[in-house]
Amino acid sequence: MAKIKNKKNSGQKLWLKGKKYILGGNMLLSKRPNLFLPDLWPTYFSKTKSCFIWDLDNKKYIDMSYMGVGTNILGYNNNRVDREVERAIKKGNISTFNAPEEVELARKLISMHKWAYKAKFARTGGEIASVAIRIARNYSKKNKVAICGYHGWHDWYLSANINKKSSLKNHLFDQLNIGGVPKEFGKLTFSFEYNDFDSLLKVYKKNPDIGVIIMEVKRNFNPKKNFLKKIKNFCTKNKIVLIFDECTSGFRENFGGLHLKYKIIPDIVLFGKALGNGYAITALLGNKKVMKEANDLFISSTFWTERIGSVAGLATLKEMKRIKSWKKITKIGKIIKEKWKRIFDKYLIEYEIKGLDSIVSFEFKRKNFNVYKTFITQEMLKKGILANNSIYVSIDHDNKILKKYFVEFEKVIKKIQILEQKGIKLEKLLESKASSLGFKRLN
Amino acid sequence: MAKIKNKKNSGQKLWLKGKKYILGGNMLLSKRPNLFLPDLWPTYFSKTKSCFIWDLDNKKYIDMSYMGVGTNILGYNNNRVDREVERAIKKGNISTFNAPEEVELARKLISMHKWAYKAKFARTGGEIASVAIRIARNYSKKNKVAICGYHGWHDWYLSANINKKSSLKNHLFDQLNIGGVPKEFGKLTFSFEYNDFDSLLKVYKKNPDIGVIIMEVKRNFNPKKNFLKKIKNFCTKNKIVLIFDECTSGFRENFGGLHLKYKIIPDIVLFGKALGNGYAITALLGNKKVMKEANDLFISSTFWTERIGSVAGLATLKEMKRIKSWKKITKIGKIIKEKWKRIFDKYLIEYEIKGLDSIVSFEFKRKNFNVYKTFITQEMLKKGILANNSIYVSIDHDNKILKKYFVEFEKVIKKIQILEQKGIKLEKLLESKASSLGFKRLN
Repeated sequence: MAKIKNKKNSGQKLWLKGKKYILGGNMLLSKRPNLFLPDLWPTYFSKTKSCFIWDLDNKKYIDMSYMGVGTNILGYNNNRVDREVERAIKKGNISTFNAPEEVELARKLISMHKWAYKAKFARTGGEIASVAIRIARNYSKKNKVAICGYHGWHDWYLSANINKKSSLKNHLFDQLNIGGVPKEFGKLTFSFEYNDFDSLLKVYKKNPDIGVIIMEVKRNFNPKKNFLKKIKNFCTKNKIVLIFDECTSGFRENFGGLHLKYKIIPDIVLFGKALGNGYAITALLGNKKVMKEANDLFISSTFWTERIGSVAGLATLKEMKRIKSWKKITKIGKIIKEKWKRIFDKYLIEYEIKGLDSIVSFEFKRKNFNVYKTFITQEMLKKGILANNSIYVSIDHDNKILKKYFVEFEKVIKKIQILEQKGIKLEKLLESKASSLGFKRLN
Repeated sequence: MAKIKNKKNSGQKLWLKGKKYILGGNMLLSKRPNLFLPDLWPTYFSKTKSCFIWDLDNKKYIDMSYMGVGTNILGYNNNRVDREVERAIKKGNISTFNAPEEVELARKLISMHKWAYKAKFARTGGEIASVAIRIARNYSKKNKVAICGYHGWHDWYLSANINKKSSLKNHLFDQLNIGGVPKEFGKLTFSFEYNDFDSLLKVYKKNPDIGVIIMEVKRNFNPKKNFLKKIKNFCTKNKIVLIFDECTSGFRENFGGLHLKYKIIPDIVLFGKALGNGYAITALLGNKKVMKEANDLFISSTFWTERIGSVAGLATLKEMKRIKSWKKITKIGKIIKEKWKRIFDKYLIEYEIKGLDSIVSFEFKRKNFNVYKTFITQEMLKKGILANNSIYVSIDHDNKILKKYFVEFEKVIKKIQILEQKGIKLEKLLESKASSLGFKRLN
């Protein structure tokens, strides 16, 4: 690691306070500076607009990274969404009565997913997944759950790691700390691998009393060899409740759940992230079979009634539909993938491209890939661009923005080629500690 | 039940749709019309201001009931809070970077609770309680939990009912449906009764491996016979992590947690409800002992990073401090209790008054109290007042409002006396089905 030239930026200074006063420093792992550029990442924002972020020193950046970790398909501060939210705040955001918009949002989501019977809303992805597990277990009367993907921080999910420490290796992290999750839960949750139907069969053979499968429809790669269809048939045959967690994949390739595109219908689907274009709202839709049985369950929370969530959800759906945002971001993402390929080919970097077309990411075939990733982040940051190896595409990533990004990106890759040819270790050029790798799903 | 004269109001019509499209009809049990006046309750709001709510037919009501179920100490649409939230929305409510206000909110809450070391924020009460349980179990290395109060809908809490169906009788409901909560959790959570230290000892005798106690500081009645002190000593002696759930009691009698007033310090305290004056934000504070061990736990959620929560929290704290809202609402609540007593005495109704001074409630000594409660709601609604037997006091319940309320309230109580004297059953005058009773805590 080279000497840190710059004196600490205001964000880095505040991060020290963040770590002092807040458990883990902040509220989301994927927004910690150590995932990007530990000692130099600006870490906090003062304002945003479109795909731009201003840090605490009022420096402006183009966000070619996470766009709120997938929350802002319609860009930051989308006028049409914000206008509705502001109107809701002026009229009142909560009361002893309910917000009428929640009914309309439920109706709309159900009309988009004809198979669905009823909806439920929450504020975060972790809790809506826990609602789904409750409803699914209640219906199946069997408590064991098979998981494939990332489904939040709750006990039922992390407990996959209790009996086998590497269960969540390919879904979240390896060797995840499961302190505070009772051992008693260890016999209830099991992981299987994406695009590996046999891995599910293996788990099921040992646990024929599995009653629930929760999974992401698509992750780094497309489903292969009828993977989704096989799972669906397997669930039908064995009376297993199938939950698709589309908190990440929803609204990115089509208007609604990605399962509609694949024509594989689950019993329950979950949405979050992009549903409110940055405002906190998550949703569950369930079919008649499971929801009819769930009516008397106690699933209730004061802040689920807050008006902003459903208002933002409705405005976001309206705007998405109006401009067909899923088409736009898919098209942009495809262009990014192509350009990446061309650049990597040109500079003879072996690579792998992954992800949905609208959540693109690459990896180099290098042992110390995180050093490469950190170097890219470092060099791009100097040019006013937030970048690592993943981009959550938004509608505001237009040609002008892409051009700016690729001019700088190509320079960095070229530099990497030269350094490699000269045998200079990239570590030596890092002005910060190297980043850690984030979620398996993203990298 | 008398014939329903009125044709359905717009809220009642929408409620039919709510029940059609949403599991349970809405997102919070305490906002369902069946708790108030099943067939006539307006159920949905169009706008709010101060302590007024307008329904979908634009009828204006004074809210002398739940004020958002405890969220709005500073009244609906508090200017100073809303102004800050609107500013945050204009600047941007979320991004790939973090919101700087979360650090300031953490610092401020810790400065108010000197014993605390670090904070964590979430969006709902249920999830912040689950975070607390994770941190507490991680520290104690013992998974059994003793509960006394209401702590949300999650598995770890409801599982108290698995081995004994009446465990949550005095905390939530009797005979609660626990479908979907694995039986395996049944040996982990146990309830004890408020102001009954022996009931805790009894539970502990059977489960000496209890590692966590979570409880409300004060509920319907004041702590008696050193109850809190005894619990604290018991926890210290037996190395049990003590969590005070102050989602409801916080900021109502003093600036911060009620435990400060009683000078009993827990290991962890939870805040919610009033912390953001109606905007979704909940908080956990923990001492050094438990938080130091929790740093590597995986507790992380995208929407916990959303800016509105911490901005609303900061603005609410500032305004509470400026006007000493806890003093105001306590004073108002005491007046309400006194006036209720005078009216009940005058009309010879046997009663019991309960609750914090700022969350007042009464009960008649009648078998069919819910019929009395429904009748009161029905008659008050006709006068444009939302009322049952509980009032979450806000600063906007001023003398003028109280006067209006008590004039009408006294008329209803007088009517009840006359009806009783004439031997006319109240049921006959109900124009709606009778309400169900709500949370034990409130009634």
